[in-house]
Amino acid sequence: MLEQIHLLAAVTVLGVLEQAYFFLQVIHARRKFGISPPNISGPPEFERIFRAQVNSSEYFPIFVALLWQAGLFFHQGLAAALGLLYLYSRYCYFMGYRASSSDRLTPIYFSTGVLWVLIAAATLGLLHFFLSHYVGLNVLRLIAA
Amino acid sequence: MLEQIHLLAAVTVLGVLEQAYFFLQVIHARRKFGISPPNISGPPEFERIFRAQVNSSEYFPIFVALLWQAGLFFHQGLAAALGLLYLYSRYCYFMGYRASSSDRLTPIYFSTGVLWVLIAAATLGLLHFFLSHYVGLNVLRLIAA
Amino acid sequence: MLEQIHLLAAVTVLGVLEQAYFFLQVIHARRKFGISPPNISGPPEFERIFRAQVNSSEYFPIFVALLWQAGLFFHQGLAAALGLLYLYSRYCYFMGYRASSSDRLTPIYFSTGVLWVLIAAATLGLLHFFLSHYVGLNVLRLIAA
Repeated sequence: MLEQIHLLAAVTVLGVLEQAYFFLQVIHARRKFGISPPNISGPPEFERIFRAQVNSSEYFPIFVALLWQAGLFFHQGLAAALGLLYLYSRYCYFMGYRASSSDRLTPIYFSTGVLWVLIAAATLGLLHFFLSHYVGLNVLRLIAA
Repeated sequence: MLEQIHLLAAVTVLGVLEQAYFFLQVIHARRKFGISPPNISGPPEFERIFRAQVNSSEYFPIFVALLWQAGLFFHQGLAAALGLLYLYSRYCYFMGYRASSSDRLTPIYFSTGVLWVLIAAATLGLLHFFLSHYVGLNVLRLIAA
Repeated sequence: MLEQIHLLAAVTVLGVLEQAYFFLQVIHARRKFGISPPNISGPPEFERIFRAQVNSSEYFPIFVALLWQAGLFFHQGLAAALGLLYLYSRYCYFMGYRASSSDRLTPIYFSTGVLWVLIAAATLGLLHFFLSHYVGLNVLRLIAA
């Protein structure tokens, strides 16, 4: 069983490390700007870093859920590669948002694009499974024939 | 293995699509009310949509975690059906909250009720597994006898 | 398959119940301090409880992701025990934060420490799997020889 998920598991742990990095950036910004919890408002420089972390946290479970469905039902290697691409674009998003609000746009569009590809892969994989499981229709074999 | 999880995977992907819809609603509301990130405060009409999305995002990993435990340890079909019911009530919650704070109440109570049924199903399924695995006590067979 | 995940599933459901408890505490605090949704600001006593719940919600998917990777690739029993320790320290964090901002520090450091141990366990387990799967190098057998 582990053979079918080890790449997904590795990308998931990498994703957690990225989240840890974002959390540390917020702690660092809190100290730099003197904003103690439970406060969450401050100068735009702080709020951009804070919002970048919150947004990344909100997307993390969505990303993990898609990564695993695409990896299990479509192709593990492809899903893991897309996962790495997503984590890289999230890093660019965080760094961009820290610099200015507009610098977050290109990487956020790119990372959303990667998520849509993962959705497409998961949906196609599931569709293939449903068709062959319930209707007995193997689309891949039909195309090959 | 995929046979035991394909319904759970399909409901998970549907749940992601619903979250995507909520995110798009917030983007749309930001444009309509002219509230640029990292700002998150504005007129109540905006704040209700924003909070509806945040609340749904907070519940998403909890929902997915319960869906899978209930589906793996109790019954996949039942868990998936409850999952669809949850996603539908979340949609009603979002639409209700957008209209007014009080219109969110009925669907949020309903969706929480669905989560408690998923918790009960997961707990019963796990209890059954623990009893038969560690104590050698098969409750279902006892009842049937 | 369920044999390899039943402890992880049980700890996951316990984690959901803890999150449910935190949500109920916020609802209770909203009533006590008269702060209706979508409002999220108020006296520090309210904001501390609110932030404690938000922070716990942000960490929940990270915790579950690590619990499962460590349990699947390192050792299920150890991962589940660390999971219980994490849930206990999260409870102390919530109660501490409710009392004062500084009382949250010791339990949050402790809970983060537990997460790092889970990261280490997951990474070691994955490393072992990658080495024996791709390089044919079984580290455990080398040490035993």
